[in-house]
Amino acid sequence: MGDNTEASPWASAGDRRRSRLDKREAVLRAAAQIFNEKGFQNTSLDEVAQRLNVTKPTLYYYVRSKDEILFECVKIGLTMVQESIQEVEVQGGSALDKLRAAMRRYAQIVTMDFGRCLILVGEDPLPAESQVKLRRIKADIDAEFRRLIEQAVAEGDLRPCDPKIAAFTIAGALSWIARWYKPSGPLRPDDIADQSITLLLTGLCRPGKGEN
Amino acid sequence: MGDNTEASPWASAGDRRRSRLDKREAVLRAAAQIFNEKGFQNTSLDEVAQRLNVTKPTLYYYVRSKDEILFECVKIGLTMVQESIQEVEVQGGSALDKLRAAMRRYAQIVTMDFGRCLILVGEDPLPAESQVKLRRIKADIDAEFRRLIEQAVAEGDLRPCDPKIAAFTIAGALSWIARWYKPSGPLRPDDIADQSITLLLTGLCRPGKGEN
Repeated sequence: MGDNTEASPWASAGDRRRSRLDKREAVLRAAAQIFNEKGFQNTSLDEVAQRLNVTKPTLYYYVRSKDEILFECVKIGLTMVQESIQEVEVQGGSALDKLRAAMRRYAQIVTMDFGRCLILVGEDPLPAESQVKLRRIKADIDAEFRRLIEQAVAEGDLRPCDPKIAAFTIAGALSWIARWYKPSGPLRPDDIADQSITLLLTGLCRPGKGEN
Repeated sequence: MGDNTEASPWASAGDRRRSRLDKREAVLRAAAQIFNEKGFQNTSLDEVAQRLNVTKPTLYYYVRSKDEILFECVKIGLTMVQESIQEVEVQGGSALDKLRAAMRRYAQIVTMDFGRCLILVGEDPLPAESQVKLRRIKADIDAEFRRLIEQAVAEGDLRPCDPKIAAFTIAGALSWIARWYKPSGPLRPDDIADQSITLLLTGLCRPGKGEN
């Protein structure tokens, strides 16, 4: 609560703005959850409104269309990934340390509402113009992972490899978690992330067994 | 051509059946290609007919609906994977040899029309009953991969691991190829498969560097 709300029964402009942003995020999150459960095409704005106990006209105060909702959900998922890479850079360490930390955060994000929506629904149902914008962010993220891989090869921690194929192998293995992870299942997101990342970094084979 | 077509201007029953099956597969393949290009929801049967230079009524001689087409496309993709695992079993060798061969074949299948459709579109747009049938086949394939992984661990070639997480890590990394592989790009499917499989088996890290 802002300081001046105690003196006035009306919320301050700042509080109103924050409340509006919170409510908009609640709309986006509820929509992402339903998209993830039953698919984008099969979700109506009526269901989103119902889950939030509001009317459809109330929704339109926060978002213009189902397309806008999906665009924003995917963008939030991508932004979470971008921010995680920035945090990793700030923490420092070797490129391998950074890569491992970025992989861990990515694996966690794809088990969360917006991250799951990024993988399970993605930008494909959107108009071409929106697709282009989101794919540009995806390409940036991909470039960051390739850069970390190249650095870790240069620092002698990773085997020499095609950074493009390595980045896609990582992205595929970790994104797939969004498809099979069940919040009600026995495996916890952190355990999945740790084990999957160890497999990717050290390989499935015992040392000396996988070379062919 | 069958033997008796030389004696009669009418095709034999066997030839007619084969021709019908070939034409049905051509319908399914053309549809899979268009689904992969622009998505299932955005594809009309008119476009499929157009690509084959036939009328829509002609299509209905081979398939009943767009849903039936997708069901069959995904099923063919899954059957290709199942058959590849059976072939791998027949060829014999260690469980690691079989796993490597099954991974290689899987990576190739997901760059082909029906395999791409399996990954890019999948069973999600179909009615619940069809989804259940296809997911049963998927679960069978998943069980085969887990069994090979367990055997290879028992034979001392793979590190001890959770076979579920290992199988999904493999499936994710290799299925992702369907999303990013471009037939017009510089990388050939076989090269992608080889490099991605080597990364998965031997790990991204140099020996001794990835343990944490």
